[in-house]
Amino acid sequence: MTDTQNSVHKVVIIGSGPAGWTAAIYAARANLNPVVYVGVAKQDPGPVLPGGQLMLTTDVENYPGFPEGVAGPEMMMKFEQQARRFGTKVVGEDIVRCEFSNDCSPHTLHTSDGKAIQAHAVIISTGATANWLGLESEMMLATTGGGVSACAVCDGALPAFRNQPLAVIGGGDTAMEEATYLTNFGSKVYVIHRRDSLRASRVMQERFLSKPNAEMMWNKVVIDCLSAPDEHGNEKLRAVVLKDTVTGEESELAVKGMFVAIGHTPATRFLQESGLVFDDAGYIELATRSSKTNIDGVFAAGDVADAKYRQAITAAGMGCQAAIDTEHWLGARGLH
Amino acid sequence: MTDTQNSVHKVVIIGSGPAGWTAAIYAARANLNPVVYVGVAKQDPGPVLPGGQLMLTTDVENYPGFPEGVAGPEMMMKFEQQARRFGTKVVGEDIVRCEFSNDCSPHTLHTSDGKAIQAHAVIISTGATANWLGLESEMMLATTGGGVSACAVCDGALPAFRNQPLAVIGGGDTAMEEATYLTNFGSKVYVIHRRDSLRASRVMQERFLSKPNAEMMWNKVVIDCLSAPDEHGNEKLRAVVLKDTVTGEESELAVKGMFVAIGHTPATRFLQESGLVFDDAGYIELATRSSKTNIDGVFAAGDVADAKYRQAITAAGMGCQAAIDTEHWLGARGLH
Repeated sequence: MTDTQNSVHKVVIIGSGPAGWTAAIYAARANLNPVVYVGVAKQDPGPVLPGGQLMLTTDVENYPGFPEGVAGPEMMMKFEQQARRFGTKVVGEDIVRCEFSNDCSPHTLHTSDGKAIQAHAVIISTGATANWLGLESEMMLATTGGGVSACAVCDGALPAFRNQPLAVIGGGDTAMEEATYLTNFGSKVYVIHRRDSLRASRVMQERFLSKPNAEMMWNKVVIDCLSAPDEHGNEKLRAVVLKDTVTGEESELAVKGMFVAIGHTPATRFLQESGLVFDDAGYIELATRSSKTNIDGVFAAGDVADAKYRQAITAAGMGCQAAIDTEHWLGARGLH
Repeated sequence: MTDTQNSVHKVVIIGSGPAGWTAAIYAARANLNPVVYVGVAKQDPGPVLPGGQLMLTTDVENYPGFPEGVAGPEMMMKFEQQARRFGTKVVGEDIVRCEFSNDCSPHTLHTSDGKAIQAHAVIISTGATANWLGLESEMMLATTGGGVSACAVCDGALPAFRNQPLAVIGGGDTAMEEATYLTNFGSKVYVIHRRDSLRASRVMQERFLSKPNAEMMWNKVVIDCLSAPDEHGNEKLRAVVLKDTVTGEESELAVKGMFVAIGHTPATRFLQESGLVFDDAGYIELATRSSKTNIDGVFAAGDVADAKYRQAITAAGMGCQAAIDTEHWLGARGLH
């Protein structure tokens, strides 16, 4: 059973990370009465949390405006407060499916509680989730600032990792890039890879291996993360347990940081058969220097449309662009 | 006389608005030891202030992370603190001329105190300045939150302008866009134009004129801004003095807000003969979804490369992109 509301929203924003909230702040200030749906269907992989990936981040040191750093969840609370202050309506439901129109009639969005809502414009900002190994100890440490991360650029410069042995899991260009970046901070950087050769390009491999503190660990997988409490009683990574994929032998490797670099998955499964165009990696394709997708009145912002930068500040900038593009689009059609 | 330093910087950042400081935060955290030159040569028009356009902004309500708003100069101080915290070096001099190399040898930048410095990579984030009418009363009210602004998207939603008569100065598409936007807030929106026809496209004109609270004031220029103190003793705009360009007649128009929309000028004059490619409006041209310019090792971020969005949050996002692009570029050449 589908319950159809009568009113057509000017703009519905799907997702509540930095991009979604920033789009909401700008749209609300432009009197577009935006409605934010905080999540997407559980069919999308990983923890698609309201608040986005930052809900998993304890110390955000690189979002400009917070010289002393800020906790990820606190930052997202501030974003939400600001969006609500200007009149954003927030709905705790997920969007499970989108039916986009091609004739400038309103788009139809299906919610997780069985409703169908209508909107002239839609901003998709559902993010992407890092792929994890799937270990319980890994997730515990990742969500408590215990030394496990899926983003070297975000977290590599934290004091806890300086002059410490670090591990990167993965074998692609991104893994090499993150590992090379970490050689600037760690006393030693191990790249742990389950095979005996890398997918990464030769130049990226050479760049990493040219560093005096770089080391490859071939044919190894991480099967557990070992931790010990620090002086405040917080569990911190002290070693990873490796298993050799050829011999089956197990061993411990002492590291203070583990960076999982086995890719990201954009949260777009709820957009299958929506008519949207995706790039080869599954991210939403945008027009040049714009937030416009291939469908009229559908815009995208943040990590769901950005495999390259993936920072809170870049996602927020894209959210702003999407709201401004939406306002112009609605205005030009007399819908504002 | 030119005094050449021996050392080659990894990256020099020119300009100290949201884009420049964000680039510095990211570059410093990536151990690139960035050096920020706060300004550009006085030959560039307008008040190219250290801190950028936000130094002229009293209430920033739309930069995400500050639910209660923040004063522009305070926000820029926080950005600077954050950049310095991670080791950014800040130099109070201007860059007056750039000699970019085409062979991957270091670029040479000439400073206002007669030095020539060298850098492998350069990030240009010198911003753009709004064009103003040039009245003393206008500038006094613009710099004190007195009701004069050059950005309707930034300031139009402020409580002081709600249900009040507002004036927009200009005749182009941007002026129409800003005026149409303001019809959502003001009781009345006058567009004041010095001729009897507009440069703006027909669709933009019609969009504005379709609003019930829109009115054109033809053949008029503003020759003064009149203010009165509010209950706190702060001067607030109460009227503009108009002069008819045909009859010479003077009159007063009661408004609580004046939005000057006669264009922006990117701060690029110090880049003349640098070999950089600019777009038709004089902004630095960038590669698609990148901060790369046409010159190897030269990147740009913020309003100097963005005529479209021009927000603090979008500029900051671009600054982050420039730092990440710079880090990859330096790394790929073994310069990091």
